[in-house]
Amino acid sequence: MKIPAILLVCALAAAAQQLTYERLLHPEKEPSNWLTYSGNYAGHRHSPLTQINDSNVGKLKVAWVYQTNSLQKFEATPIVIDGIMYVSEPPSNMAAIDTRTGRALWRYRRQLPDDLRVCCGQVNRGVAVLGDLVYLGTLDGHLLALDTKTGAIRWDTVVVDYKLGYSITVAPLAVKDKIVIGVAGGEYGARGVLDAYHARTGKQAWRFWTVPGPGEPGNETWKGDSWKSGAADTWVTGAFDPATNLIYWGTGNPGPDWNGEVRLGDNLYSDSIVAVDADSGKLKWYFQFTPHDVHDWDATEVPVLIDAEVRGEKRKLLLFPNRNAFYYVLDRVTGKFLLGKPYAKQTWAKGLDDSGRPIRVEGTTPTLQGVKVWPSVAGANNWYSPAYSPVTNLFYVAVRDSGAVYYTGEAVYKPGERFDGGGFRAIAGEEEQGFIRAYKPTTAEVAWEYKLHSAPWAGVLSTAGNLVFGATNEGQIFALNARTGAPLWRFQATSLLVRSNPMTYAVDGKQYIAMTLGNSLYAFTIE
Amino acid sequence: MKIPAILLVCALAAAAQQLTYERLLHPEKEPSNWLTYSGNYAGHRHSPLTQINDSNVGKLKVAWVYQTNSLQKFEATPIVIDGIMYVSEPPSNMAAIDTRTGRALWRYRRQLPDDLRVCCGQVNRGVAVLGDLVYLGTLDGHLLALDTKTGAIRWDTVVVDYKLGYSITVAPLAVKDKIVIGVAGGEYGARGVLDAYHARTGKQAWRFWTVPGPGEPGNETWKGDSWKSGAADTWVTGAFDPATNLIYWGTGNPGPDWNGEVRLGDNLYSDSIVAVDADSGKLKWYFQFTPHDVHDWDATEVPVLIDAEVRGEKRKLLLFPNRNAFYYVLDRVTGKFLLGKPYAKQTWAKGLDDSGRPIRVEGTTPTLQGVKVWPSVAGANNWYSPAYSPVTNLFYVAVRDSGAVYYTGEAVYKPGERFDGGGFRAIAGEEEQGFIRAYKPTTAEVAWEYKLHSAPWAGVLSTAGNLVFGATNEGQIFALNARTGAPLWRFQATSLLVRSNPMTYAVDGKQYIAMTLGNSLYAFTIE
Repeated sequence: MKIPAILLVCALAAAAQQLTYERLLHPEKEPSNWLTYSGNYAGHRHSPLTQINDSNVGKLKVAWVYQTNSLQKFEATPIVIDGIMYVSEPPSNMAAIDTRTGRALWRYRRQLPDDLRVCCGQVNRGVAVLGDLVYLGTLDGHLLALDTKTGAIRWDTVVVDYKLGYSITVAPLAVKDKIVIGVAGGEYGARGVLDAYHARTGKQAWRFWTVPGPGEPGNETWKGDSWKSGAADTWVTGAFDPATNLIYWGTGNPGPDWNGEVRLGDNLYSDSIVAVDADSGKLKWYFQFTPHDVHDWDATEVPVLIDAEVRGEKRKLLLFPNRNAFYYVLDRVTGKFLLGKPYAKQTWAKGLDDSGRPIRVEGTTPTLQGVKVWPSVAGANNWYSPAYSPVTNLFYVAVRDSGAVYYTGEAVYKPGERFDGGGFRAIAGEEEQGFIRAYKPTTAEVAWEYKLHSAPWAGVLSTAGNLVFGATNEGQIFALNARTGAPLWRFQATSLLVRSNPMTYAVDGKQYIAMTLGNSLYAFTIE
Repeated sequence: MKIPAILLVCALAAAAQQLTYERLLHPEKEPSNWLTYSGNYAGHRHSPLTQINDSNVGKLKVAWVYQTNSLQKFEATPIVIDGIMYVSEPPSNMAAIDTRTGRALWRYRRQLPDDLRVCCGQVNRGVAVLGDLVYLGTLDGHLLALDTKTGAIRWDTVVVDYKLGYSITVAPLAVKDKIVIGVAGGEYGARGVLDAYHARTGKQAWRFWTVPGPGEPGNETWKGDSWKSGAADTWVTGAFDPATNLIYWGTGNPGPDWNGEVRLGDNLYSDSIVAVDADSGKLKWYFQFTPHDVHDWDATEVPVLIDAEVRGEKRKLLLFPNRNAFYYVLDRVTGKFLLGKPYAKQTWAKGLDDSGRPIRVEGTTPTLQGVKVWPSVAGANNWYSPAYSPVTNLFYVAVRDSGAVYYTGEAVYKPGERFDGGGFRAIAGEEEQGFIRAYKPTTAEVAWEYKLHSAPWAGVLSTAGNLVFGATNEGQIFALNARTGAPLWRFQATSLLVRSNPMTYAVDGKQYIAMTLGNSLYAFTIE
């Protein structure tokens, strides 16, 4: 347990190594590190590390704990580079941490204004690193670049005006020489953007508006001026494929959430995957999962990219278990719909047509009195991450199974004010269900299932050690056998809800599992 | 790691055993439990458990963690009885926890008014248990009795009116059929009480005013009406000796803290140990450490009772390393002063006279401009606990070494408002020191010393496993060899300050070390 002071110096020296784009392209060459939000550009959240595996995971113990002094939800996935961890903390703070000991090397604390607009907690999901800079989005709509060695601010760019209802909670994504970042604000009608900034200077490289303006294709899918407050925000980190040079990013609900009368039409590109050119930000294709959504089913899940055979043809795919309770497989070169089928209880669609468009069930639109629909607002999936293992060829998803009563209300847009147009409540007496499920990725066939006590808010990590890690609402982190779902280990970490994703790294030849659990960041290892 | 549901049932069944006064008298007969705040009535914070010891403590690992969702300091020492832990949480909450798993069996959440008066954080230091009730003091001045099995409130008694500046942060002490409790409020001039309530009914059994009223001995030590706002509060749990039938309790600073002009005189019984009859609450003796205190040196440390030879005579002693930087040994039968000597840097007294009264250094009284004095307001010791080991016959104290600049200000008493009469600031450039020291108890001779990075806010636990546990401001819990002070183990638990005391228990034949570290309660064990 003795940690010589010299190690700290070594760690700092290691940090001076530049994190190049070349390194980001090949995280598999440095499995000790965790270079991006999802571990690789394809959104796999999978690690080749095997030191912790199905034969020894029962010996996993807490190595260290890092606590925040915030009551806000601690949702971040840490980045680890050469022995140093970079992690954001609520509300818009961050720290660089010695991965061996959990001690902070430096901290950044942002002074935030009192009049923030956040729908769902003052949260942040993580940072990006490129070169010797670490990038943090803030609740007041800025993107910051900090020196990885000292935490000093190198540049501070205003992305959006928080007074219009925007906030930034998403982990940025470093692609080539740019930092890609989205925004939140779906409950304020804040018109979504996906932006890229030059990594060295903070100057804007491109902006993609997720709601097309007048004269642009798609603007006609919004009644009158409703596009102006159309939301479709971009608050979960997307994926990137260097082969297609496309960035794949999910968009959120149209504004207002539950009153669709004021925005008749399909409301493009809300509840969609948008595929934009990494250099220009120009839209290549889109796929809208829930046209004219009136249930707040953001398509802000993590897109997962794999190459596999579908109907006898090898394809570049995008997997997307959606909040709307349908599991989608798309061709990521063209956006073509290949598969869509329910993977949790749903009562809103009779099915999907050949193009993947839902065939609505009548009487599922929210009313003044309220109407019972499955899935719930929280959906069958949500922002937390799935994992894909190339070893097992299984796709691991934390699935939620619950319904809600949806009701409408007045929807008058005022900049910077709530723009819900209704709401929801729990179904009296319904007990929501939760599962970790392993799916065959191209068919959505269930290989195994592990039942949880309740519908989860934590994502999963898969490792080549034949393990899947996840966490429960009841405060436990656990490990399952990746091939069978058999529970192998668990640890009671908190009395609070877990809302985060596990990751893994290694330092000094020792593998660790790290996850924010409740209001603390834990690192686990085997001694 | 699998915990059968049946264990929970067993634990609950065990809790049904009554915690009798007879059991409280003999905690050494049931070393698996931790029955009172300090582990025994004598304030020893020592455990006879040896399963975790100097040969295996390096293998100590986190067994479970229980997090609060409060930003307030988590200062509580848990009570453990037959497999169930009772612990208060900030601000005035509590939980019953399964000691094997860390999962809550029940929780109590108190609704507090918005206009609380607390000087130093919305904290609580623990509960007491007697029979099948658990007792909790609240920041709004109530004493509650809850059912140990369900958390249901059995009675709720108003101890003091919080609108007058009182709060309750102290862990109550169960003595015979009564619950003894003190109050906080020294920065509001709230006149101190030490109270006892009938354990079954909540009716007041006796009250001892720590500032004597008109006509009572000691009232003459207060100029004019200044006794009315004299404070001398009772916010740290005292000790009890069944042989003398006396309760020994420390009292806080006189009000106002730093402006002594408005309360000329010795200001009895501020900054004192009071020894009161356990049945009647009548004062048997007192010893005032700091007459006419103008530096806020509350004598609210934990009194430690041992029997030992002093100057050739076997005596019943009370050990008291005071906030004022003098280490005192008193005869606890009579209150007679036996020894007093500095144990940290101090510049305010030339020494003590034969009666133990300090001989003041001129020019150390706070002024408008400020005057530099050692020790600081936080003192050489504070509310956190020391430990005495009957095995090593050493007395373990977390010692602080720092000074402050003290200044005076206006002091006009208004009920329920701050009544400081000045303040303090750090000495520019001074680096405060911190140590764990093992003292020979009757001479204050240092047997060994372990240097900390900074002046501590955490107490210590000693065990018959030849261990002393403590924690640092830097978030680590550690174990030292009780005979040599050699560091044997440490764990990085938090990025927050640790302000609490360790304790230990055993369940199912396995020993655990438990401590609140930052905003979480940890249990450690060896598998």
